[in-house]
Parts: sequence; structure tokens; C-alpha cells
Amino acid sequence: MRIAVDAMGGDHAPDEIVRGALLYRASGGAAEIVLVGDPARLHASDGIGVEPATEVVEMGEHPGAALRRRGDTSIAVATRLVREGKADGVVSAGNTGATMAAALLILGRVRGIDRPALCGMLPTTKGGPACLLDAGATMDATAQNILQFARMASRFMERVHGVPSPSVGLLNVGEEPEKGGRIQLEAHELLRGAADIRFYGNVEGRDILHGTTDIVVTDGFTGNTVAKAMEGVLDVMTEGIRRDIFGGAGGKVAALVALPGIRRFRARMDYEPYVSAPLLGVNGVSVVTHGRARARMLKLAIDVAERSIASGLIAALGVAA
Amino acid sequence: MRIAVDAMGGDHAPDEIVRGALLYRASGGAAEIVLVGDPARLHASDGIGVEPATEVVEMGEHPGAALRRRGDTSIAVATRLVREGKADGVVSAGNTGATMAAALLILGRVRGIDRPALCGMLPTTKGGPACLLDAGATMDATAQNILQFARMASRFMERVHGVPSPSVGLLNVGEEPEKGGRIQLEAHELLRGAADIRFYGNVEGRDILHGTTDIVVTDGFTGNTVAKAMEGVLDVMTEGIRRDIFGGAGGKVAALVALPGIRRFRARMDYEPYVSAPLLGVNGVSVVTHGRARARMLKLAIDVAERSIASGLIAALGVAA
Repeated sequence: MRIAVDAMGGDHAPDEIVRGALLYRASGGAAEIVLVGDPARLHASDGIGVEPATEVVEMGEHPGAALRRRGDTSIAVATRLVREGKADGVVSAGNTGATMAAALLILGRVRGIDRPALCGMLPTTKGGPACLLDAGATMDATAQNILQFARMASRFMERVHGVPSPSVGLLNVGEEPEKGGRIQLEAHELLRGAADIRFYGNVEGRDILHGTTDIVVTDGFTGNTVAKAMEGVLDVMTEGIRRDIFGGAGGKVAALVALPGIRRFRARMDYEPYVSAPLLGVNGVSVVTHGRARARMLKLAIDVAERSIASGLIAALGVAA
Repeated sequence: MRIAVDAMGGDHAPDEIVRGALLYRASGGAAEIVLVGDPARLHASDGIGVEPATEVVEMGEHPGAALRRRGDTSIAVATRLVREGKADGVVSAGNTGATMAAALLILGRVRGIDRPALCGMLPTTKGGPACLLDAGATMDATAQNILQFARMASRFMERVHGVPSPSVGLLNVGEEPEKGGRIQLEAHELLRGAADIRFYGNVEGRDILHGTTDIVVTDGFTGNTVAKAMEGVLDVMTEGIRRDIFGGAGGKVAALVALPGIRRFRARMDYEPYVSAPLLGVNGVSVVTHGRARARMLKLAIDVAERSIASGLIAALGVAA
């Protein structure tokens, strides 16, 4: 097994990306790694090769335009390795839009899947992850698209996260089946009738973090805005705790006393083990991780790619079609 | 001026509702209050009258069905007082759907407004409130509906919260004008061309709490799911702080030391002064407040109704039509 890693993508590329690859190998990872990027900044080592790519898609750049204008970006070169069978999957912490665009343009879609979906993986209070999708790949999703998202996420949670028969909730404004707009009403019916998923019913925004269901499906517009709004609350609360509660002299003393508790809290909020997820619906394993990934998160993203490949995820996604 | 208060709506009705009305009067409120509900549990006093209503719409009940089946619910009776000119506005902490349904059925819409919108009022890190709407009144909103929401919210923030020339952001998946689905692309164009609002451009979910704009507009489906998802994060974080960081013996000591900071943090997160907002687009002042409102929040909701009435909000909403 061989996994291509976009060594130039992400806020801490290439150094932390390289460290992540080394960490993966040192921890006994089964796959060989190919680091894709500037050869002057990358070095081959045991089980780690280098594939040169001269360009990078920057974080703020328009993904489609960047890929059209410059053929030799690290994400395009890495994704082409997968298409050409020289790698079994690709991992990137770079511009998510560019990773998606490269996957769609270069790998194409899985047969039977009309539109791709991105998983937003979140920690839950009951422990373990929940998968919110689509987190931003397909804006104007139809009910049929949402059904396909539910199927793909079910196979993903079964195979990559070992959740047997994962439950699926439809994100809605209330639990009752008659809630929501046109798309939700239609999607509810389709999901209820699908034999290859375990449909729980409607869930609300506050259910996501409680892990009411293993999977929460919605269109890419709603999923993306909800995920970013949740991130915003998290940031504001974290900053408030740091500044208001533990800032100043008294606060610093309190922080020392509360240290074991702060560590407990952090451990509970640690989403690094599952934040990375493949873009579902493209014809190859293309794992997206956070732009702020450092070595540990990158290593864990490679783990996700490895499990996706080893479990035959891509072939399973087309089964329902 | 006279304000009808649904004395039977909300988790702490009628006692906390009555206490809220007394608090409003004691603090020099300009309006007379009419408490609407079970006369056996309500008592008239100086500036506070009682209007009997025998039924209540329960929190979990289907609002439309409840209003059709039982004519004598407290929210219906209170709203009819407004239609009949016996009150200038209504305030309820009860079932939001029922308050909206009663307002639409009994008061009707403002001329020139096609669909109503509910404000979700939130605290921001820059201080002062932001208005997220529509927070759940109109599911399948068109771009034209969203433009009307922006106009109504602008008049509301100017007149009721004293924000001169409030800025309006369109909730979207990115800042660039070409982001989003069909509705967002069309709404962006309409908002940009509107002379009677100050359009900032697209904003993302994480901008809401930062107060990037005074108003964030979106359809009622997205607004409702986003608001509930944000509430979910808040609950999970608050519970985590309480249990993980300040639970246990060491945590309790830390909490004592950190008490001034905890108070600062709570004060910053205090949204009670503006959480209540009128349903915009119905032909009368109908203020919705939180189901868990106690006396202080209810008193502040009456303040919002008073300012809405005194400032001629309803007449201003139709101006742009």
C-alpha cells in the first residue's frame, strides 16, 4: 500500500507534514508514503519517497482557477499518482476546495453517486465521533443526493470507524417527520424507505454533539454553515475561558489548581483522532484534514487513509447504486 | 400603551411571568399590562389587569392544530386583544410556533411583506447584540423573502436597539460573492442592489458571534439549524466547564479562586437584555421570548415590546414595500 501526502498543503507545511509522515512510519504504519512537493525541502527516508511538484495552491486561492492555471501543484500531482495507480490514496491538509476539485477532476465520481460529500467529523458527549455531512462539497443538494450521502457515510462509519450499523439522522428544525422545507420532507421519505441504512429520523442542531445519531445528513450549504457556526462558538467560549476566567493573577492561580480538570476537558474535546475524513463519492481515497494540522493530526489522517484503503471503502460506496 | 402578556406560556408560567410583569411595572415601565390566563392563578394590581383564558398550548404541542381545536388558549386570547385594539402588543414565553401561528392567523401580515421572520438575538464578542434571522419562521425562503428579512431587521435594529444604519451580512459558505447555492447567489445580488439597507456582503457562521455585522440574514431552515447547533455547543461547553474543570474537590477550590473571572465570563455571555424579539412581518407587535424565561427575562421582553410599540416599528416595516 502506498499513500501520497501533499507535503506543501496546510498552515504548517512542509515541516509538520513531514514530521507527521515520519510519525506514521515510526508507529508501524503499513503504507509507504510518497511526499509530494518541493524536493529541496523534502527528503526520502525508510518507507518514505519524494515526488516533485513545483507549485502550491494557497489557502485563500480559488481552487478551480488554481488547478486550471497551474498543472504542477502538489495536490494535483499527488492526486494523479492515485489515478495512475502509483498510490492508493492521497492525504492533504491544504486548501479543501482544491483537494475536492482535484479529486473530482482527476479521479472522477464513483459510479452511481451523483454528487460528492465532505464529512465534518465531530466529538460527541457520549464518546466517539459523529459524522456531519455534507460539510460543504455540494451546495444545492437534492433529496436524492442526501440519500446517497447517508449511504456513503454509513459505509464510511462501518468500515473506517468500526461502528456497526451506524444510525443516520436528518438535520431538521424539529423531530416530527412533517418538519422542514421541501428538500427535508422529501429526503425524510427517501431515508425512511432505504433498506441499506439505519434511519433514526429527524435530529436538530443540538443533537449533533450529543451523538444522538452516528451520522447527521444535510445539504452542503447547511452543513458548512452549521459546522462553521459551531466552530465559532467553540472559539469564543475557549477565548472567554482563557481570558475572563483564567486571565489575570487570580485566574492564573485558579488555572494551576484546576489543571487536572482542564486536562480532562481538553481530552474530551480532542477530535484529532477522527477529524480527518475522505471526500465521499470520488473514485479514489482522498482524505481531507484540517489546515492547522500538525504532525500528530497528519499522522492520524494517514491512518484514516490507510483504513479507507484496507477496508475497500471506495468499492463499497458504489454498491447501493 | 397596553401590553398583553401570555401568563400561561413558558416553563415557569404563570408565577415567573407574573413576577416579570410586576418587575416591569416596579421599574417604571410605561405600559399597562394585561395578564392573560387562568384567573384563579392571576391577580390584578396597580397597572396590571387580568384577562381570562382557560386553555394553554403546551410546549410540545403542534401549534396549528392546537389553535384550530381550542379557541380559548392564552396566546390566542392575548393576540386577539391586539387585533381588537385592546392591547398594543403581546409578549409570550410559550410555544414559539403557537405564538407565530396566532400572530399570522389573527394579526395577518404587514402589507408588502410576503413571509414573516423570527429574530434570533445573540451576544457578540464586540459587545451588543447581533440579529440572526430568519431563525425559523419561513422554511423555503426565496431570495426576495431574504431581502425583505434584511429590510425588516434593519428597521428593528435601528428603532428597538438604537443601532444607526445597521450592517447586514448574508450567511454563506465563504466571503466571495460567487459562493453558495442558487438562493444565496440571487439574494446576494438583491441585497447589493437595495438602497434601504447597508449590505456588508457574505459572512460565515463563525462571524455571527464576532459581530462582523449587526444583522445576519438567511432562510428559516438554515437560521434555525444554525441557532440550535450553536446552542448545542454552548450547552456542551458549559457542562464540560462545570463538570471537568470545576467539578471535584480541586475544581471547587479553583472555582472559588476564579469566581470574579467566572462572573466576568457570565456577564459577557448574558443575552437576556436582547434575547426577546418581535416576530417581524406580522401586522402587530408580537414578542417571542425564551421558554425558560424567568422574571428578569420576561421583564426585558416587555421592554422590547414597549420600544417596538413606541418607535412605530410595525408601520416602518411596510415602508419599503
